[in-house]
Amino acid sequence: MALEIFWFSGSGFAWRAVLAAELKGVPYTSRLIEASAGDHRTPEFLAMNPRGKVPVLRDGDVVVTESMAILAYLDRRFPEPPLFGRTEEETARIWRIALDFDNNAAHHFTDLILPIFFGRVAERREQMDAALEAVRDELAALEATLSRSTWLAGDTLSAADIAVYPSIEVLLRAAGKPEAQPLDLRLLPFEKTHPALAAWRQRIQALPGYDGAYPPHWREAA
Amino acid sequence: MALEIFWFSGSGFAWRAVLAAELKGVPYTSRLIEASAGDHRTPEFLAMNPRGKVPVLRDGDVVVTESMAILAYLDRRFPEPPLFGRTEEETARIWRIALDFDNNAAHHFTDLILPIFFGRVAERREQMDAALEAVRDELAALEATLSRSTWLAGDTLSAADIAVYPSIEVLLRAAGKPEAQPLDLRLLPFEKTHPALAAWRQRIQALPGYDGAYPPHWREAA
Repeated sequence: MALEIFWFSGSGFAWRAVLAAELKGVPYTSRLIEASAGDHRTPEFLAMNPRGKVPVLRDGDVVVTESMAILAYLDRRFPEPPLFGRTEEETARIWRIALDFDNNAAHHFTDLILPIFFGRVAERREQMDAALEAVRDELAALEATLSRSTWLAGDTLSAADIAVYPSIEVLLRAAGKPEAQPLDLRLLPFEKTHPALAAWRQRIQALPGYDGAYPPHWREAA
Repeated sequence: MALEIFWFSGSGFAWRAVLAAELKGVPYTSRLIEASAGDHRTPEFLAMNPRGKVPVLRDGDVVVTESMAILAYLDRRFPEPPLFGRTEEETARIWRIALDFDNNAAHHFTDLILPIFFGRVAERREQMDAALEAVRDELAALEATLSRSTWLAGDTLSAADIAVYPSIEVLLRAAGKPEAQPLDLRLLPFEKTHPALAAWRQRIQALPGYDGAYPPHWREAA
């Protein structure tokens, strides 16, 4: 039986897992589940992940939660092409970028994005303004990195790109919503504000397999 | 030149890096720096880590931040004994435990611990009570795991143990402070409240190299 990936459409962390499987060409069964239907609170799901979070990967008896752990598993199970580098220096750089993003940047993206999607801009405005400032700094650092190299960790696509990409995409989707208008985000058009990031985004979108991981409900709404 | 590890005495995340180097028997130069002296805000330090955080590993031209990225680097550079398992299933389990802790549990430990060390118990009491409840749940889950296996990810010491251990130790140190008295933590004596965790703690403390990573200022204060 092919391995299965449980995910929500549009969840950035879940997107990483599906994107990694697609870009590596790993055969998998997509288990697209619905938060609104409570699919992540069923006994079967909670037996896999007591946190009730996506993504979850199941491969026979092996169950993996946490998006970066799933990427590490996929990379050991299907080593080519490697997502975590071929040398210890590359491995370090890739994990550094991915974990630095998760531990220091991701919560600012979330604080900025979620109130836009959930119609809470007015009540969260103060927190969002602080998050916006932090997000601008993170984007500037990523822009600087991508002005010097093709991919975030160097000459090769890696888990670092897969870790960061969905948050950028979700941010830009939020930035285009009418609810974001009062915020003066000044992120769009992205190719003007962040040309290196925008070019990197296009490189990722052109990769074979990219479309298979695209959030289905975004396509319907487009 | 031996690789260098920059750390603060008593920082749980930094402790991971030094503990991993010690337990693997990796030769390294300890760069114990002082937050109170601003050692992490010097231009030299910020050139290594613009976040101004420890741990930082420097190995010639290679600079690694983020404690788990440092462990991944050490494990690629000095493969035996492996900290991230010998099979893809072990790798997945180890990363899952470590990243689940960092992404879902560590902030509760911090919310509970820091106000005790910094004399903010009265003003943070509400947040601390919520954190205590979450920490109890995390400890119960760890206790259950260690009732079934010797180490967190199975029969072998791994990066999962190194990831979780310092937070337990810092928590117990905080729990023993007079400032913690009003909180009714009910964590001590730990061998009564959490026997499997307490036995695991003793196993770690008996490992060759453990003492070399012990926070120096804790020893002085003991």
